[in-house]
Amino acid sequence: MEKNKVNSRQKILETASELFKSQGYHATGLNQIIKESGAPKGSIYHYFPGGKEELAIESIKLAVRKGKENLINDLSKSSDPLKSIEELLKKISDDFDPHNPHHGVSISMLAMETSVISDPLRNACLDAFKTWESIFYDKLIEGGFNPEEAEGLGMTIHFLLEGAVALSIVRQDNKPFLIISKQIKRLLSCNT
Amino acid sequence: MEKNKVNSRQKILETASELFKSQGYHATGLNQIIKESGAPKGSIYHYFPGGKEELAIESIKLAVRKGKENLINDLSKSSDPLKSIEELLKKISDDFDPHNPHHGVSISMLAMETSVISDPLRNACLDAFKTWESIFYDKLIEGGFNPEEAEGLGMTIHFLLEGAVALSIVRQDNKPFLIISKQIKRLLSCNT
Repeated sequence: MEKNKVNSRQKILETASELFKSQGYHATGLNQIIKESGAPKGSIYHYFPGGKEELAIESIKLAVRKGKENLINDLSKSSDPLKSIEELLKKISDDFDPHNPHHGVSISMLAMETSVISDPLRNACLDAFKTWESIFYDKLIEGGFNPEEAEGLGMTIHFLLEGAVALSIVRQDNKPFLIISKQIKRLLSCNT
Repeated sequence: MEKNKVNSRQKILETASELFKSQGYHATGLNQIIKESGAPKGSIYHYFPGGKEELAIESIKLAVRKGKENLINDLSKSSDPLKSIEELLKKISDDFDPHNPHHGVSISMLAMETSVISDPLRNACLDAFKTWESIFYDKLIEGGFNPEEAEGLGMTIHFLLEGAVALSIVRQDNKPFLIISKQIKRLLSCNT
């Protein structure tokens, strides 16, 4: 019984998460989540009393938990920040399949779509941004950058990654990852 | 009569453009466009036989036309690329109002939402990306950068701008624009 409960909640959340990612917040309705998850009607409000808003917040948290672990793991392969980021970008670029891109709405997109309408959702997006940036920040501090440099560079690396994902999908090739890799090298090797 | 035709088409397009920007592609339906534009039912398919897809493509083109002129104008205030970009970012950051951010879905977001489902929409997004990048590219070439540098830097500046817009909305402050301004200075002043 306890296990079914967990599974039912988890199934609703995973379904909602996929729908928010592929369609965005506004286009995703509770009826579609119920239908595609196969969960009994009414169970959404049982598990998520805050409805669609709570589901979106939990979806963002789920995406952050999953992504955080992978990113920390990828960056741990070299102690040198530049080398580890270059290897991460090489891996993303090698894995990129123009016929089956990892598509969907990023945290940036959910953020822009929802920040104006919901403070709790805005805060969930803010936490997501902070999480990505803090992973790069920690890596840069470990590599000897000072806190102010690490903050600006961490934010920059995050923006470049999000931009490269969007552009590679539109171009249907992996060139943007290779271009930003050179730019990140320029930034991290630069003594100004 | 000819004038009414133009107005009716224009009104539908402006309405559709606003709705796509604030809600995204999937969440915007033709019925809402008809209702909010006040255009007679049936006139959408008269002016836009390709329906929602054609309206989205024309909306992207409209946004590019409007934005392109403003951006070129802003960057023309100094012949030095770095100075003109710093002034642009200062202007955006001064104009940023946390209580009334310029919200909405960027080209990146529409691109990620639609590229997998429609090639014509993907191509419209690709043209938009190329337009933004070519404006920065031209400015950098004018300032003495070589073509390969200008391509990478133009793409980078575009990604940083899009990222800073998203993050400033989430944070409700203008700090991201100031941070990327420093990073762009680092990139453009760097001799590697």
